[in-house]
Amino acid sequence: MAARTGTRPTAHRSAAQIPLRPAPERSPHEPATIAGRIPLTDPSPRVADGYPAKAFAGEVVPFRVVAFREGHDLIGVHLRLTDPSGEESLHRLTPLKDGTDGWRTEVALDAQGVWRYRFEAFSDDFATWAHAASVKAEAAVDVPVMSALGVELLTRAGKERDRPAAEKRALKAAAARLKDGAEDAAELHAVATDETLAAFFADRPLTTLHSAGDELRLVVERTTAGVGAWYEFFPRSEGAKRLKDGSIKSGTFRTAAKRLPAVADMGFDVVYIVPIHPIGTTNRKGRNNTLTAEPGDPGSPYAIGAPEGGHDAIHPDLGTPADFRSFVRTARKLGLEVALDLALQASPDHPWVTEHPEWFTTLPDGTIAYAENPPKKYQDIYPLNFDNDPEGIYAEMLRIVRHWVAQGVKIFRVDNPHTKPLQFWEWLIAAVNAEDPDVIFLAEAFTRPAVMRALARVGFQQSYSYFTWRNTKAELEEFLTSVAHETSDYMRPNLFVNTHDILTEYLQFGGRAAYRIRACIAATAAPVYGVYAGYELIENVARPGSEENIDNEKYEYKFRDWAGAEARGESLAPLLRRLNAIRREHPALRQLRNISFHWSDDDAILVYSKHLDAAFTGTGASDTIIVVANVDPHSVRETTVHLDTRVWGVEPGDTFEVEDLLTGAVWTWADHNYVRLDAFAEPVHILRVKERS
Amino acid sequence: MAARTGTRPTAHRSAAQIPLRPAPERSPHEPATIAGRIPLTDPSPRVADGYPAKAFAGEVVPFRVVAFREGHDLIGVHLRLTDPSGEESLHRLTPLKDGTDGWRTEVALDAQGVWRYRFEAFSDDFATWAHAASVKAEAAVDVPVMSALGVELLTRAGKERDRPAAEKRALKAAAARLKDGAEDAAELHAVATDETLAAFFADRPLTTLHSAGDELRLVVERTTAGVGAWYEFFPRSEGAKRLKDGSIKSGTFRTAAKRLPAVADMGFDVVYIVPIHPIGTTNRKGRNNTLTAEPGDPGSPYAIGAPEGGHDAIHPDLGTPADFRSFVRTARKLGLEVALDLALQASPDHPWVTEHPEWFTTLPDGTIAYAENPPKKYQDIYPLNFDNDPEGIYAEMLRIVRHWVAQGVKIFRVDNPHTKPLQFWEWLIAAVNAEDPDVIFLAEAFTRPAVMRALARVGFQQSYSYFTWRNTKAELEEFLTSVAHETSDYMRPNLFVNTHDILTEYLQFGGRAAYRIRACIAATAAPVYGVYAGYELIENVARPGSEENIDNEKYEYKFRDWAGAEARGESLAPLLRRLNAIRREHPALRQLRNISFHWSDDDAILVYSKHLDAAFTGTGASDTIIVVANVDPHSVRETTVHLDTRVWGVEPGDTFEVEDLLTGAVWTWADHNYVRLDAFAEPVHILRVKERS
Repeated sequence: MAARTGTRPTAHRSAAQIPLRPAPERSPHEPATIAGRIPLTDPSPRVADGYPAKAFAGEVVPFRVVAFREGHDLIGVHLRLTDPSGEESLHRLTPLKDGTDGWRTEVALDAQGVWRYRFEAFSDDFATWAHAASVKAEAAVDVPVMSALGVELLTRAGKERDRPAAEKRALKAAAARLKDGAEDAAELHAVATDETLAAFFADRPLTTLHSAGDELRLVVERTTAGVGAWYEFFPRSEGAKRLKDGSIKSGTFRTAAKRLPAVADMGFDVVYIVPIHPIGTTNRKGRNNTLTAEPGDPGSPYAIGAPEGGHDAIHPDLGTPADFRSFVRTARKLGLEVALDLALQASPDHPWVTEHPEWFTTLPDGTIAYAENPPKKYQDIYPLNFDNDPEGIYAEMLRIVRHWVAQGVKIFRVDNPHTKPLQFWEWLIAAVNAEDPDVIFLAEAFTRPAVMRALARVGFQQSYSYFTWRNTKAELEEFLTSVAHETSDYMRPNLFVNTHDILTEYLQFGGRAAYRIRACIAATAAPVYGVYAGYELIENVARPGSEENIDNEKYEYKFRDWAGAEARGESLAPLLRRLNAIRREHPALRQLRNISFHWSDDDAILVYSKHLDAAFTGTGASDTIIVVANVDPHSVRETTVHLDTRVWGVEPGDTFEVEDLLTGAVWTWADHNYVRLDAFAEPVHILRVKERS
Repeated sequence: MAARTGTRPTAHRSAAQIPLRPAPERSPHEPATIAGRIPLTDPSPRVADGYPAKAFAGEVVPFRVVAFREGHDLIGVHLRLTDPSGEESLHRLTPLKDGTDGWRTEVALDAQGVWRYRFEAFSDDFATWAHAASVKAEAAVDVPVMSALGVELLTRAGKERDRPAAEKRALKAAAARLKDGAEDAAELHAVATDETLAAFFADRPLTTLHSAGDELRLVVERTTAGVGAWYEFFPRSEGAKRLKDGSIKSGTFRTAAKRLPAVADMGFDVVYIVPIHPIGTTNRKGRNNTLTAEPGDPGSPYAIGAPEGGHDAIHPDLGTPADFRSFVRTARKLGLEVALDLALQASPDHPWVTEHPEWFTTLPDGTIAYAENPPKKYQDIYPLNFDNDPEGIYAEMLRIVRHWVAQGVKIFRVDNPHTKPLQFWEWLIAAVNAEDPDVIFLAEAFTRPAVMRALARVGFQQSYSYFTWRNTKAELEEFLTSVAHETSDYMRPNLFVNTHDILTEYLQFGGRAAYRIRACIAATAAPVYGVYAGYELIENVARPGSEENIDNEKYEYKFRDWAGAEARGESLAPLLRRLNAIRREHPALRQLRNISFHWSDDDAILVYSKHLDAAFTGTGASDTIIVVANVDPHSVRETTVHLDTRVWGVEPGDTFEVEDLLTGAVWTWADHNYVRLDAFAEPVHILRVKERS
């Protein structure tokens, strides 16, 4: 949206913005409760336990409040919004369903920083009069009194300072007209239902009984906190070479950088790389998580720390700090941002172990305690003990993050944050964001709901989620409803389809169709999703009895023939490329909260739409995507889908054109539509609703 | 419960109280958020918008919080409760279902006033060790180290100041035993699973990492705010006489007082009488709400005010102020409390109209605005306009309430509070309760949910509810779940089966069975319920097209033959008498939050239980009532009911005896039971679960 000449670009967009008026003063006699003269209760967004709500730059945020007054008189409700620079704007709310007393508007928040907002309510004097006057005029009751009341109101409105002169003249004329025809029911009815007058009062309502709710806060983070396509890979595998003696030469940042153009070409926004630090040799894990490593086994990159250094060092096999910075620069040139893994744990060979033994738990026999879940032990890893020297540990962790920020990294994927104290994360993220609000932390906490949610509330900008295990239609509807409508004020799910630790049964046994279905849903249902390298190649063989890939890359180098697979038509890279292009072209897919579910008669046909009003697309037209997915990867399904077309402004029964963005097919649809989805050919429709010309 | 000698009676009862320990200090470095060292989130009871939670004296209140920590170590959670006198107590919470991180305990709050509470969490060091030690002892892993850790812990516990000497000796002995058998897995296992030691640590856990949540408030009101059987009647009908000339002589407080022994004998607690003030003659309504009254028509008691006086006056037909006080005294002697109607509106003849015309809305033509819902008008009533002279109106309303409080009235049934400003009620109730916390206000607001809830939040002690219109099994389950489990922290429903304004279709067309069913459910499902006089006589004829009685008592005198109806076996008085007796005998029925629903195979057979643990009954035994109701008043139903018997501590499959408190029948029941409920004979079972001896 172009900034208007002479004004700076606004920090928000809204279809309901109205001319600004001064905020009402709260009467000093009024108790600071919901019970202002007009009560305002249950404002949202509002997050439990006093945390601010969150949004990302460009997010369209619904603002809601419950407001009502005694009796039958009409009220109006405003949102008063203060952007991070201190500039105020006023937005009119519209009532929700009758009987709920709920009110709502939507605003796109474009500026990063802390926003403040509060709701204001008022007696809508003109609307109250207009309603009573039109009803009474029709019944020919009280016409002179209603006309006299109308003259009073119109005269009062005509004297308001902030009304344009033309409006004042029109109000004066209407008052005169009412005065002259004081006994005339038709005249009264005409003025009470005059659309021009109504428009004046929609923008500048005639108000009394001003009431204001408490001020609340909302933090807007940068867009990448809420929107992005992620690609995970192991730098050491990219360019690794099998030598003549059978040993393997590790890939390096230089060789790995050669993979970046292909990742960028697929349309990804973020490349996430697993830890790049020196790996311990004590109790190093071998292939397939065996307890003893063979010579040449590279070890798990999560067993961090060796004589070469710890969390601020780079594994010598990968290259030098300069090589890493060059890798980051190459990525940036390609439009990719690098996300680093932050795994706060140590191999027994980490420099911390000798320099700061107090950061670990020492047992009565003098040994350091391994990570364990009794009686199981993880002997390649020492967990940190945050309670012995919190100041020391906190300072060291902040130093490490600062170190990588200085190397150009602004995104951290945090390994297992739920195994460290919550208050540590609250402190660390606040400390880092105070210096650089652009730094983003993604919580890899596949744990209990209360813990996942608490991590998001205290500061994590993004969260791994249960998406990976939500595969049926019912599971997906419930999951997506929860993340879009229940927790979206503070938690943003990153819908990874797989990770180096997770190869679900659905992917193990669903074949190529399963991979296609999951990618289509992940890429369209939420604005952040992710893929771990190898997904394109349908790497779906699990280590028996486990939920992870056989020959897991965590413990060995992987050799993959990306170009060959694509040339042979075996790769899903073209699908990922298309999905990411669709995401770029359709702003509705870059929002979290705008999902609606629709009915289908088949329990494997999932139907949802994502809609964005014209006020928010930047194109002047609204944007609507309908996704119809057969989530059963083993079948061909035919069914009828039933759409609530009002979501995108089409009356039930009216037809509209849709275009399948995957195949280019065009159909005329209405509210009930036949679909046939063949898991083995085209399991998913991603349909664009064409605007009627 | 008798007070123990030498101590004053405690203000609370709980099965989970433990010896008091000092509260942990919050580290000054800790941010005041959920993220203490051990996070405590989502405490409850907690009411939105900053209002305190509510309870009534004797109410068993569930206290819940979400608490968790990183990793696998075990935690414990305490509730620190401060009674209105400032005395603290400590209660241990138990974990809810695995994976929820929820914790819970229940406490009966017996003292009226403002309570404070907060949750505290700690690392449960002994439990963590005992779990790891027993598992490792079984696996014969790390035995010496675990033994050494055990010695450390037991020694530390033995040094704690507040531990009884005998406990210290036992701890010392256990430590010595562990030290001696340091290599002995069996010895380690024995100590780790020792039940005596576990009991020591249940009462006085061995703790570190103390964390405390924010302090919250809870207001305990007197028991009658939450428990009581209400009986509504019109004093003017009781003792009214038809004279020889065909005119009617009004009943008086003296004649009405003669009805009180029968009301008390039926076991009611509160008699609510409609307004007792002078009634206007201008535009007085006639019988059946007709626009013109005939000579002798007494008028609606809600058209308050006449030359004889307004809201502080007594209708001359009813007697003198002294007669009223005598009526209140008679009631009190019978164990009945009088509730007065507070209807803040005026007939055109009210003294306010001439003395304070500014308290009403004057129209441009100089007339005062009637109550209206355009185009409808209510010409016997002027509504108050609270915005012209709030100070004046507020002061007058407080004066009126004080006046009646001085006459011995401590309960007010407030007519249509949702037609007056919410902030007025918040102010009035706070002002009255500051002088006398025993005064109770019941909101007659049959309005939208948000408004009903807001009235309760800002101070109303009790609320009329949608119960009247919830008649099917599904409706009742949903309604009762909502009032018992969703809004019970601030709203207490009074389940009136009928009122002088409401005769539902269910009662109009359900015959005698409908009246019996509704009384049984109202009296057992919630601790407050009410009946409007005439219910006993199955007065079920409606004014055609309306939802109220024909010949509504609001507009005329009613003559009823109470004793004759009972003698002829036509009255429901014996059923009401029995229901009220059951309520007195069963403390489980005097709680709101303790309802559980159970399955039946028939969609008209409603099944619920009310259970109270032995810690709260005062008898040493638990109390359990099971209600099985056929809510179809037109049929005989046979079905199977499926009970979750664990609610009252019976394992699934075990049998127990139940006694029908209405018929005396005794059956042996288990989790699946056949029932036959004949709407025309016995439509409801009210079953007492007999404790096994």
